[in-house]
Amino acid sequence: MSLIVMKFGGSSVGTPERMQLVAKRIIERQQEGNEIIVVVSAMGDTTDDLIDQSKQLNANPPAREMDMLLSVGEQISISLLSMTIHQQGHSAVSFTGWQAGMITEKEHGKAKIKKIDPHRVITAVKNGSIAIVAGFQGMSEDGEITTLGRGGSDTTAVALAAEVGADACEIYTDVDGVYSTDPRVVKRARKLDNISYDEMLELANLGAAVLHPRAVEYAKHNNVKLVVRSSFTHNEGTVVREEAIMEQGVVVSGIAFDKNVARISILGVEDEPGVLAHVFGALADNGIDVDIIVQSGVQDGKADFSFTLSRNDADKALQVIESIRETVTHREATSDDNLVKVSIVGAGMVSNPGVAAKMFATISSLGVSIKMVSTSEIKCSCVIAPDKLSEVVIALHTAYGLDAETEVFVGGPKERR
Amino acid sequence: MSLIVMKFGGSSVGTPERMQLVAKRIIERQQEGNEIIVVVSAMGDTTDDLIDQSKQLNANPPAREMDMLLSVGEQISISLLSMTIHQQGHSAVSFTGWQAGMITEKEHGKAKIKKIDPHRVITAVKNGSIAIVAGFQGMSEDGEITTLGRGGSDTTAVALAAEVGADACEIYTDVDGVYSTDPRVVKRARKLDNISYDEMLELANLGAAVLHPRAVEYAKHNNVKLVVRSSFTHNEGTVVREEAIMEQGVVVSGIAFDKNVARISILGVEDEPGVLAHVFGALADNGIDVDIIVQSGVQDGKADFSFTLSRNDADKALQVIESIRETVTHREATSDDNLVKVSIVGAGMVSNPGVAAKMFATISSLGVSIKMVSTSEIKCSCVIAPDKLSEVVIALHTAYGLDAETEVFVGGPKERR
Repeated sequence: MSLIVMKFGGSSVGTPERMQLVAKRIIERQQEGNEIIVVVSAMGDTTDDLIDQSKQLNANPPAREMDMLLSVGEQISISLLSMTIHQQGHSAVSFTGWQAGMITEKEHGKAKIKKIDPHRVITAVKNGSIAIVAGFQGMSEDGEITTLGRGGSDTTAVALAAEVGADACEIYTDVDGVYSTDPRVVKRARKLDNISYDEMLELANLGAAVLHPRAVEYAKHNNVKLVVRSSFTHNEGTVVREEAIMEQGVVVSGIAFDKNVARISILGVEDEPGVLAHVFGALADNGIDVDIIVQSGVQDGKADFSFTLSRNDADKALQVIESIRETVTHREATSDDNLVKVSIVGAGMVSNPGVAAKMFATISSLGVSIKMVSTSEIKCSCVIAPDKLSEVVIALHTAYGLDAETEVFVGGPKERR
Repeated sequence: MSLIVMKFGGSSVGTPERMQLVAKRIIERQQEGNEIIVVVSAMGDTTDDLIDQSKQLNANPPAREMDMLLSVGEQISISLLSMTIHQQGHSAVSFTGWQAGMITEKEHGKAKIKKIDPHRVITAVKNGSIAIVAGFQGMSEDGEITTLGRGGSDTTAVALAAEVGADACEIYTDVDGVYSTDPRVVKRARKLDNISYDEMLELANLGAAVLHPRAVEYAKHNNVKLVVRSSFTHNEGTVVREEAIMEQGVVVSGIAFDKNVARISILGVEDEPGVLAHVFGALADNGIDVDIIVQSGVQDGKADFSFTLSRNDADKALQVIESIRETVTHREATSDDNLVKVSIVGAGMVSNPGVAAKMFATISSLGVSIKMVSTSEIKCSCVIAPDKLSEVVIALHTAYGLDAETEVFVGGPKERR
């Protein structure tokens, strides 16, 4: 008998019909001889509706009270899902975060899981019930309700799977699995049967929003076998695990892209020790994540450097740089907020020289100039102008032999929480 | 410095505007030099909406899961009310039932409060914050979320007031206080300044839905001073306490009525010992509350008897009586489900003979026949046909000298939870 954690996102339970399908799916999985723990997010628009209600009363509410409010979303979905399973003749018991023993730090709105005491969940499962746990939420050690922040339900599922020693953590979503690239851009994108944690992590960080990076990291660290599969089909899905069984000859597993890139350049910086640390320390203190950093050579004691970041953060970053002008003397700071980033990801890259060169050649052959480059052992990213992004992604997908034989049906929007 | 518990019902916080008014009212009360604990119900239609959602998925959901679902209603209202108070520049901390230490029995949907450990609430108040506690809910000793059933938020407020030794428990509602009768029927109904627990209890039990009987009983038992007052005016309200300062010459304080009455008659019952106990035991086992019971004299070893009950329970009661036919031999059982009950209530009745006689005479003078009578020390109830109910209530109100000098403005619907 296997112990399986099944995680369903908000759009999978967004209507009564979908809730019933999900209940049926869970019961089938139990009938196949498994013990089942379900983790579920808030239904459809519940979270947004609650946020709207709060904004009418307080534009900037205390984080503690916001957690009190938002944790309601999952409490609704767990109880309704439990009722639906009962309606279909099977036993289920729902648990809020605190009932499931999810003890977190006390950073409201972005709490990290500290430890888990899942004894009530285990007891329910051992009694033959399906245990249904609220994702995204927990409790601090002094009894305050907390939420885990973005991607929280994925993290709840993975952490619970690790704690109870589950045989697999199945992430159910709107798509069939992890694709070689976004099927809305490349119709011949193909579903991957296997992928390594590191590849998944790169894809997740690069905007392929199937799984939250924090959950992938947690899974890698605790060696939890992840399966990404569809809520609404019985297709096999994609297995994420340490020793990915690499497909023959596959060097690059996927092409990712991010349309939300800005570049900031700081020109004529006095080249003193600690300048870079000072700039990026100040940005980090203001909650700004920086991606690619490039520094040009020093001339006459002055240096230029550039970095990319999320477009939403560009104005704030310029303000931060201006605010530290006294310490970091520079001529000017400029921003270009109309850029995109395209990346190739593959665990096979490290042992195959020339992979990056093929990327540069493919992009250049389309007449597109590469503005910045960043590489890691399993990834190569290029920043380019946005106008030919789709052509670049399609060309790279073909160049690395990723095209599927048939086109993909592209369904509704993806979900994220 | 006084410690005050303020309870607000669902319609008092049903819109953002009302929520803001309630927040203002709470802050005023604190600024007057009081320490404040607020108890609040679910907003407006939240509970009904949640029930509707559940019915779509399971017509008969497990009580445990229903409590899980419905407790969400108050968690939304406490967090939003807390945010609203913060928006107005004051500190507030919300607490779910379990966070406020409301430990209950484990009867889901109608749990009784077992004990209260309000140390977190007290700490918040001592720190200068307004404590906001979810009404209607608690937690069993093994960590299950429970709800208190009908009138639950009133009971939460009174029980908390008793536990913390509050100077008053103020019940805020849509009306100015407790009235001598329903102002929708008698325009010259008048607001009572004072009323005793027992009178309030009778009025509450007789359908004057300002305060739940369970809460009144709890207040009487623990000698909690109750004040019923309006959420939206600054009028004085009605004080409910043990030694009501009786107004000069007032014998009857109020006229109550219940439009939802049925009578069941069991005819030709074998008059054996224990017959009544058997009938009413079986009804109680089936959750049917019986009100007035009348037994006629025994003739030829056979007796007839009748009782009143809520109209909704009449069919079920007939089934129960049929099911015990073997033990309680009888000729036939009939029901009349088109009756009403009118009652006069007053602590002065016990020392004033002739009060009931005046009631019978007033009713008879309108050509209405009295079908059943029940009396207690502070109450006299008559069951009559429904067609002349309003005229009867108006005539009694005048006969007992209760008419006010001016007519009452009748606002929106009353609330109940």
